[in-house]
Amino acid sequence: MNILVAQSGGPSSVINATLSGIIKGYQNNAIPGKLLGSLNGIQGVIDRNIIDLTETFTDSDSLNLLAKTPAMYLGSCRYKLDESNTKDYQQIFYVLTLLDIECFIYIGGNDSMDTIHKLCVYGESIESKIQFIGLPKTIDNDIAVTDHTPGFGSAAKFVSSTILNIAHDAFVYNSPSITLVETMGRNAGWLTAAASLSRNDYFHGPDMIFLPEVEFSMTTFINSIKEKLQQKKNLIIVVSEGIKDSKGQYICQQASKWSVDSFGHTKLTGAAKILESQLKSHFDFRIRSIELNVLQRCYMHMASQTDLDEAQRLGVESIHVALEGLSGIMLAFNRLSTSHYAVDIIPVPLKDVANHEKKIPRSWINDAGNHVQEDCIDYLLPLIQGEVELEYRLGVPKYVDIKHLQ
Amino acid sequence: MNILVAQSGGPSSVINATLSGIIKGYQNNAIPGKLLGSLNGIQGVIDRNIIDLTETFTDSDSLNLLAKTPAMYLGSCRYKLDESNTKDYQQIFYVLTLLDIECFIYIGGNDSMDTIHKLCVYGESIESKIQFIGLPKTIDNDIAVTDHTPGFGSAAKFVSSTILNIAHDAFVYNSPSITLVETMGRNAGWLTAAASLSRNDYFHGPDMIFLPEVEFSMTTFINSIKEKLQQKKNLIIVVSEGIKDSKGQYICQQASKWSVDSFGHTKLTGAAKILESQLKSHFDFRIRSIELNVLQRCYMHMASQTDLDEAQRLGVESIHVALEGLSGIMLAFNRLSTSHYAVDIIPVPLKDVANHEKKIPRSWINDAGNHVQEDCIDYLLPLIQGEVELEYRLGVPKYVDIKHLQ
Repeated sequence: MNILVAQSGGPSSVINATLSGIIKGYQNNAIPGKLLGSLNGIQGVIDRNIIDLTETFTDSDSLNLLAKTPAMYLGSCRYKLDESNTKDYQQIFYVLTLLDIECFIYIGGNDSMDTIHKLCVYGESIESKIQFIGLPKTIDNDIAVTDHTPGFGSAAKFVSSTILNIAHDAFVYNSPSITLVETMGRNAGWLTAAASLSRNDYFHGPDMIFLPEVEFSMTTFINSIKEKLQQKKNLIIVVSEGIKDSKGQYICQQASKWSVDSFGHTKLTGAAKILESQLKSHFDFRIRSIELNVLQRCYMHMASQTDLDEAQRLGVESIHVALEGLSGIMLAFNRLSTSHYAVDIIPVPLKDVANHEKKIPRSWINDAGNHVQEDCIDYLLPLIQGEVELEYRLGVPKYVDIKHLQ
Repeated sequence: MNILVAQSGGPSSVINATLSGIIKGYQNNAIPGKLLGSLNGIQGVIDRNIIDLTETFTDSDSLNLLAKTPAMYLGSCRYKLDESNTKDYQQIFYVLTLLDIECFIYIGGNDSMDTIHKLCVYGESIESKIQFIGLPKTIDNDIAVTDHTPGFGSAAKFVSSTILNIAHDAFVYNSPSITLVETMGRNAGWLTAAASLSRNDYFHGPDMIFLPEVEFSMTTFINSIKEKLQQKKNLIIVVSEGIKDSKGQYICQQASKWSVDSFGHTKLTGAAKILESQLKSHFDFRIRSIELNVLQRCYMHMASQTDLDEAQRLGVESIHVALEGLSGIMLAFNRLSTSHYAVDIIPVPLKDVANHEKKIPRSWINDAGNHVQEDCIDYLLPLIQGEVELEYRLGVPKYVDIKHLQ
């Protein structure tokens, strides 16, 4: 059975762990045929930019190194399949047929699940036998049906640990201060909510957390800060890049150039910077903003072992369902228990996944809309457990070679 | 012998390791008396905000936890002693005498060495017997006379590892891109130069590195980018927050509000953001900027074991020189060998240290002024070696309690 794998969407710390799981699963099952990788997602299929994965990763050492390498070994793309343009579909199926591919596995986020779903539907329309399997990954945790997504736990661990480090930094001066921290998260606030996991015996976590799920009001924001300052001198406030005002307009949009990527998403930057400048006109003390930026999605040093293990399991399991002949499905996590955390992996129809965005339920956010409830923290906590041990060479981490992407 | 310790200036990952070394040295020598800590630097002496350190850290577990806690257990201040205002000096010596302090140890950067030097000179003028000892720390590595400063190695390890992570993130798309990364460093480019340590077998490190030591020209910058783009599609460029134009004006100053802290330093932000907006008017592809911000000075996860060990040694050694009766000195590192890296610790006169800034020698920067030479890399490399193992609790690091600072 010849299988083709590709990665798409934004990087994460564990998307290569899923790839390593696929290779492991393929090797363990001693499948006759080839396991191929398309470089730069679906673009690599169109351009016939294909590599042989079984030849590159022949021993467990190289597979382990791959699993602990951030971002995407196969590269990514932001290529949107247009249903009205059948030329792309024809070219993709031409290449898949030419390479004698029986199963195409696509690892990605919401947009990628949409892509693989479209390919599956097109395949059915031309009575193709090729199987299509989607594997979720996104640091945003916004894919529907699955309990959570690989990549999120590691990003959440980065966010929570970083907030704790920032708190230690923020408390050194004996004068008032406000520290604004901006996390990624366009429409879903999962990563922002993960800031709450920074709490411990002496630090209660961020004073406020602002999510895209709740309408943001500048007046309420300023007033609640005034109130908090009566109890303590150093405030730490975490905001999502995607907070919106009552008209549904992004706060960051008020200053930055409005630009749209190829999926029609607004490119966001600077919500915290805008709040910083607003606060500076109200308060006469130290106010600073910190944008966690792309570090959230590539900080392998802070990967969650739970996340990495699950990402790899997903890869291994995809080979099983491929061998079972399944198609048009995504593998999802089904949480069995939170108190004694356990998940199993189940296939779900791609049509239930594609183009749905999972947001934080309103009941998991406090009434004031500026913090999360304990239910949310209970849900998040298991996902950041465990630390990944990295190898080092000359003081920096040793990763798998990515010369082919440069 | 009663000893008082204080910390000052900006936080770092290992300034508490120096404090733990002092406590360890005090305990090991079974010194009769008290080891006290002043909260928020010299401000704590003036306000008599003093804690007993020997009572808090009684076992090696708590001392180890302190050594692995980022930022400053005793807090910091930015209080500038004014030579014309003798009231402050009188109050400080009044409190020191009242507490029967025989030695005052101040851990800090250039400004703190200036403070402790002034106190020492004042002490001599009133024939005080109190000893004054300075211990260096700053992530900027800009203190004179010492080979390097504690805190720098860990910040340098954070910068170099982070650049490697960012490189993995930057190479995923098959289209041109420029990633600008901004590091701290007002007048000295040591931390920016440390970005060069990200290189390995498959990544040659940043394409260009811009330091405050070299005049920055926007025209040359744009032209060299055009040149580089002919060879490769994804550029990674690292700039210091402190890059200046031919008139000596900070690049960041062109957009951000000019504001000055209590030491008369310009507060810097956004050099990379300004370059980003300039590049966007020249190139029509993905250009982004990442400000590493305060993570550079508090990212305990990325601390260098070499740095942490040396910071602790410095603390232990300060007790020895205190017992020897030395005063008016700072303990400095003297590098014995680079190839078989080793340093010893020597006392140097505070007057040779205070108010001198150590910059990167021009000979360690290439002719074009946009990268560092191998000599610089040889100097930097030993400082980032070794990884610090952290304890975790519920997925985030376990640090020492800092409730007293909140």
